[in-house]
Amino acid sequence: MTEFRVHRQLLEDCHYLGRTGCCHILLHRNGGLPWYIVVPETGALELDELTNDERYEVDLITDALARFLKQHQQCQRSNVAAIGNRVPQLHIHVVGRWEGDPCWPDVVWGNLPPAPARSETEVDELGRLVLAQLAE
Amino acid sequence: MTEFRVHRQLLEDCHYLGRTGCCHILLHRNGGLPWYIVVPETGALELDELTNDERYEVDLITDALARFLKQHQQCQRSNVAAIGNRVPQLHIHVVGRWEGDPCWPDVVWGNLPPAPARSETEVDELGRLVLAQLAE
Repeated sequence: MTEFRVHRQLLEDCHYLGRTGCCHILLHRNGGLPWYIVVPETGALELDELTNDERYEVDLITDALARFLKQHQQCQRSNVAAIGNRVPQLHIHVVGRWEGDPCWPDVVWGNLPPAPARSETEVDELGRLVLAQLAE
Repeated sequence: MTEFRVHRQLLEDCHYLGRTGCCHILLHRNGGLPWYIVVPETGALELDELTNDERYEVDLITDALARFLKQHQQCQRSNVAAIGNRVPQLHIHVVGRWEGDPCWPDVVWGNLPPAPARSETEVDELGRLVLAQLAE
């Protein structure tokens, strides 16, 4: 079996936070809003191709991230999406949104203006908190 | 308990196809590509607020729609997303995509150009097929 690798483009666009269960957790480098990307370690290219166990675990993780955004990152909503038109590897966006955020009420894809990157300390701290929440 | 109603804006934007299980199934009026919207009959505003049973049923339905797009509507991919920045009622988009479609590779939200509406006959036929597939 070929070794699984997170797609190069996702690693370019994101900080790699770590792995939990079957999924790799990334944080988009744009610091304008909290934007996580979940990459299940699978050959499936779309949600409907996952096994029941994988689908269940992906749900648990994306739901926990959505709650993390609302409980710990002052977000009002989460936008949860599997798109994959540019990067075919299955990945699920979980994006924290609030009225007045940098591209509200538009979707982030194609609309999020450039923003300063987060500091290394901030990324480390956020990664630690997120992974702790996902491990619960 | 207040009677559940599909949000007015969704009914304006879409053809109402019918109900299956806990979900109402809509088809976006833009005929440029097949774009379904699933509205679970729930007070939850986000996927992570659904009960386990509701979440499981929503997954079954969105997965079945994604397969329908690929098996019966010549789509290469599905874009599956819960956004809700403009319409707060929980609804999940399941959009059929292919290379060269009217806004490929951009997302449909904010980018899909106007297109002729489908005929009433076409909508009826599609609704019948989709609901039969979802009932399986």
